[in-house]
Amino acid sequence: MTTNTGPVRQAGAPAILDPDQTDLLRALDAVFAGWARAAGAREIMPPPVYAVSDLEKFDAYQNFPHLALVAAPLELAGGVAAPTDGRFAPSNLREARLGLPHAACFGAYLFYENTQLARDMLVTLMNQCFRNEDHYTPLRRLVSFRMREIVALGTYDHTQQVLAAFTERITEFGAALGLGLRREAATDPFFENNGPRALLARLDPVKYEFQAGDLAISSVNTHRNFFGERCRIRLRADPDAGPGYAYTSCVAFGLERWLGVLVEQHGCAVRALAAVRDAAARVP
Amino acid sequence: MTTNTGPVRQAGAPAILDPDQTDLLRALDAVFAGWARAAGAREIMPPPVYAVSDLEKFDAYQNFPHLALVAAPLELAGGVAAPTDGRFAPSNLREARLGLPHAACFGAYLFYENTQLARDMLVTLMNQCFRNEDHYTPLRRLVSFRMREIVALGTYDHTQQVLAAFTERITEFGAALGLGLRREAATDPFFENNGPRALLARLDPVKYEFQAGDLAISSVNTHRNFFGERCRIRLRADPDAGPGYAYTSCVAFGLERWLGVLVEQHGCAVRALAAVRDAAARVP
Repeated sequence: MTTNTGPVRQAGAPAILDPDQTDLLRALDAVFAGWARAAGAREIMPPPVYAVSDLEKFDAYQNFPHLALVAAPLELAGGVAAPTDGRFAPSNLREARLGLPHAACFGAYLFYENTQLARDMLVTLMNQCFRNEDHYTPLRRLVSFRMREIVALGTYDHTQQVLAAFTERITEFGAALGLGLRREAATDPFFENNGPRALLARLDPVKYEFQAGDLAISSVNTHRNFFGERCRIRLRADPDAGPGYAYTSCVAFGLERWLGVLVEQHGCAVRALAAVRDAAARVP
Repeated sequence: MTTNTGPVRQAGAPAILDPDQTDLLRALDAVFAGWARAAGAREIMPPPVYAVSDLEKFDAYQNFPHLALVAAPLELAGGVAAPTDGRFAPSNLREARLGLPHAACFGAYLFYENTQLARDMLVTLMNQCFRNEDHYTPLRRLVSFRMREIVALGTYDHTQQVLAAFTERITEFGAALGLGLRREAATDPFFENNGPRALLARLDPVKYEFQAGDLAISSVNTHRNFFGERCRIRLRADPDAGPGYAYTSCVAFGLERWLGVLVEQHGCAVRALAAVRDAAARVP
């Protein structure tokens, strides 16, 4: 339909998915969101920017400062600012009060902030996530990408049952797609590197990744009551104990990474879409 | 399901849509995207950040500097930066090479950048948009919101036929919903305020808004060949004339604004969703 007459996008520029890639991403996301709904989840829609003070609650700037991107208005006091070589210098910026998230599940904890859960909850959400990296690779390592998450909040048992159920589902779906997924314990430094939480993580992994080749395309994560405490999400009152902070866990799908692996496997997004529909029918 | 025990979200914080609002927004978006597909459009997926140099092509920083938000990494040379009162000072930031868009259709022009169109094209896309404002109002004036657009590229006649067809569709859908939409010529300063384009816009409106009360919830926009020229999108070769730059137009739906108007009309998102489904069945 179109004929390229030059380079379509500059190297490293945020990617625009073409129609076939878009159909495939939407189909994959519908599969994962469908699993969530079948398990009783409802969906919420988070924004792709938060108050810096909200992301700060999750130690985002303490543990991942190098990955962080923050959003600032332009300083217009000295007249209209124009970028130089596609860049605004810090002196052209005003203070940044908004932060771009690097994971989708933050929206779930902020949605339930300062609430008391009447029962175990399951919620799903998709968000744009952002990571400032040294280099980018199409579909595999992007400055901006989409993450679908399924988040459990409530008792510790509930959070673990959800991870076990979705671990099985991801394993079956990966097998139906012939992806050869490997489940690997991971040591992402979500919690501070040298604190007691990090020690605990080495003894008892809190994150497992599903890897296709060398690329993690999904993960299951146990947070204990870290997010519950930071957002003051309380469990329903227990007659035997005062209300404590909710436990949480999440199941994450890096949608562009799934896309990248499937397009590489099938040679194009159209054939990959047919494979996804076939696998979804076999692993309902 | 939950009991609030305190303020759920701080005033002015980017909004998280609850499950009922999410279902309504997805249903509205499916209606508008369905109209686009029925008219022959395919969908593309743009990122919520672009290179500043890409947004600069559209005079975004020249015409809307006060609305602009740009994204910067943290300056870590002096040790880990921590925000003060939820703010990073400019001196804590590195240069900003990424810009947050204030309209969705930019993705369409960048997708077709440096291409030659083989025929008239119709494409649809939804994106997160961002506007730095003095104040925010829930669902009506947000720092971050979702915009569905339907973009025509090709001959001038094509761009005008698309606007005429969707003007009729929006009018019928608004009537089926009992929204009392008014179609008003608008003078958004998309093009430079004092240039010949602005004069032309006053003589021959290039933007019409559909207003519910005092809120513009949709618009139809004629760009002539502004974006075609800026992105070097060429029309197929005309035997009688050399290939010129493509004309473009777009139809925009501010999804949270539609949500706000419908929730106010029906009292809650659940009843609004029933009304949308009913109206969509009557205006297919």
